[in-house]
Amino acid sequence: MLETAELIDHGQAVLLTFQQGERRRFHGVWLRDNAQDAATRSPDNGQRLISLADIPAPLRLTEARVDAGCLIVTMAPEGREFTYDGVWLWQHAYDREPPARRGWLDAHAETWDASLAERLPTADITADITALGRDDAKRRWLADIRRYGIGKLTGGPLEDGALLDVVAQFGFVRETNYGRYFEVRSEIAPTNLAFTGLGLPAHTDNPYRDPAPTLQLLYCLENSATGGDNRVVDGFRAAQRLREEDPRGFELLAGYCARFEYRGLGDVCLQARRPMIELAPDGELIGIRFNNRSAAPFTDIPFADMAAYYAAYRRLGEILESPEMGVTFKLAPGEAFLVDNTRVLHARTGYSGEGSRWLQGCYADRDGLLSTLACLEADAQGDAA
Amino acid sequence: MLETAELIDHGQAVLLTFQQGERRRFHGVWLRDNAQDAATRSPDNGQRLISLADIPAPLRLTEARVDAGCLIVTMAPEGREFTYDGVWLWQHAYDREPPARRGWLDAHAETWDASLAERLPTADITADITALGRDDAKRRWLADIRRYGIGKLTGGPLEDGALLDVVAQFGFVRETNYGRYFEVRSEIAPTNLAFTGLGLPAHTDNPYRDPAPTLQLLYCLENSATGGDNRVVDGFRAAQRLREEDPRGFELLAGYCARFEYRGLGDVCLQARRPMIELAPDGELIGIRFNNRSAAPFTDIPFADMAAYYAAYRRLGEILESPEMGVTFKLAPGEAFLVDNTRVLHARTGYSGEGSRWLQGCYADRDGLLSTLACLEADAQGDAA
Repeated sequence: MLETAELIDHGQAVLLTFQQGERRRFHGVWLRDNAQDAATRSPDNGQRLISLADIPAPLRLTEARVDAGCLIVTMAPEGREFTYDGVWLWQHAYDREPPARRGWLDAHAETWDASLAERLPTADITADITALGRDDAKRRWLADIRRYGIGKLTGGPLEDGALLDVVAQFGFVRETNYGRYFEVRSEIAPTNLAFTGLGLPAHTDNPYRDPAPTLQLLYCLENSATGGDNRVVDGFRAAQRLREEDPRGFELLAGYCARFEYRGLGDVCLQARRPMIELAPDGELIGIRFNNRSAAPFTDIPFADMAAYYAAYRRLGEILESPEMGVTFKLAPGEAFLVDNTRVLHARTGYSGEGSRWLQGCYADRDGLLSTLACLEADAQGDAA
Repeated sequence: MLETAELIDHGQAVLLTFQQGERRRFHGVWLRDNAQDAATRSPDNGQRLISLADIPAPLRLTEARVDAGCLIVTMAPEGREFTYDGVWLWQHAYDREPPARRGWLDAHAETWDASLAERLPTADITADITALGRDDAKRRWLADIRRYGIGKLTGGPLEDGALLDVVAQFGFVRETNYGRYFEVRSEIAPTNLAFTGLGLPAHTDNPYRDPAPTLQLLYCLENSATGGDNRVVDGFRAAQRLREEDPRGFELLAGYCARFEYRGLGDVCLQARRPMIELAPDGELIGIRFNNRSAAPFTDIPFADMAAYYAAYRRLGEILESPEMGVTFKLAPGEAFLVDNTRVLHARTGYSGEGSRWLQGCYADRDGLLSTLACLEADAQGDAA
């Protein structure tokens, strides 16, 4: 509960006191920019109707008071009063130290290791995910994707293209040169090693693409071959482990760009320059790109750092392949898994020509999934209220 | 031309001398990882067949010599010889200082101001861009998009959805909650201010989406309304100008994340936390996000920096709206423009209910466009050789 308000810094800011004496300062310009009145924000769609150019500068707070848990301020030179809900202010307070540690995680993310096998997030395609599915199960599964970056699906139809129906339940396919979806089975003259029976070490897909697809769905239609198991690893956990073991190695992989490249048969040439470990400017760990097959020659690391960079790259690969880090499973027909391709790496064991293995894969993006989840969560809160 | 090779650092690296005495060092591990032999790289698809785990460590160069412009090294403990083309080595040399200046640009990018109006990259949809178009004109136009982040198109058909055929000539549509494409005309109860007749200040689209779409195409079908002109501005030029005027302001906008949000009518809730000026870890200027309508309350800038952050935000907005920075045009029916949405902002003047204005818009991504361009360039080089 908001209790008191006091002008500070000659009216440039206001000092608020909340319950238990917690104090938070807010600038006048921040308050003006975030005003909630109908002339500032569209009542219809919530979008801001003004830009900073419409806000007089310099701006000064001339009065501040608390009324029924709300802050009411008057601003010069506009001479208008603006009202802010105290709970909203508390939730949007920025008067704190920025995160000190490099590689911190969003509060929604939780890293994992091999022990996730016992509680691998799983939903039933037909009962939970389809349009007629159970919203609560779908919501939990999507929330697990946000938390762990991996989820399994069971009970899907054995139909060509069925994976597209799954994606349509939470988002939109990212079409690429591989099509809206692509076949993952052994080809005679493969354009990509994924389309062979070779084992593939843990990797993220398409790091040679910018933006890389942020979600990947792999859907099984046949799997009677020997081998061909899938393995998933949390790249965020691996990066944090590298940071503990070798802080300088972590900083090198985050501080320099790698290069990735894929050349198809005359009609595709994809190249990207991005770091293996991506941090937001304030140090949040936001992305992993790791793929031995499509790593191009690295040319952006100075000679003095290249040996240590390679040592860190090697060590990160070892961590990713450590048995205690990954979860292994074999998909049955009608099963699938979805990974956050900015975080969770996937691998497969080699498989032989005996029997058959037929998966279909497609890409999608996190924005649609997180939007669907946010709406389901808002609905659930509404139901509970 | 490669002239001499000499082992250094106890065989950890090799020192090469090129024409005119230019010297470049390469590490043994880098050379091994980038070996071109058929056991390291697939001769079929060019992908790397090994990972670092397959390369013995420690590795040591035991011999290095130059033969016919090629470097030939022997590595222990494998005891194998590897050969590298001298020109390839020169092109991939990394023995140099990293870029010192924050906000440097890729060599393919060139910033611009209002004077671009005289030479705005333009191609004819029917003659140049369609499947039967002139490859050289298409290649030049795509290269201009890469260089300037903006290109105009003329001579297109007046057909609903014609914009999708344009995108299909160089890439893939990014489908979103707005559909594969969307209508931009006045709506009675608009879900987005873009769908009104209001003027819109310069902005990038969908900064509330992560990844944000990297290309946007706006295609005109009717435009007899008064007003409704389009204006485009180079966000990279604006960011660099801010850096010259106010280096600290530039660093604040690059160093802290802003927040963006869009809420639709119950079924959409998109949120992103990204900086307004995005730099690669080594300082390359790689992205701009700027949108007053969808900027959410900023909560990741500490109190001590917020006033200066807002001053920089305001100043960047003023620069973007400066007449000498932008190019203004009015699309005629059958005309369109494509922008790199990670760099070039677009704006429109308000328009009145007299006459009609009907545009269709869609999103796509840079990866497909740059791949198409790279292949056209490779073809052109092949033709010239």
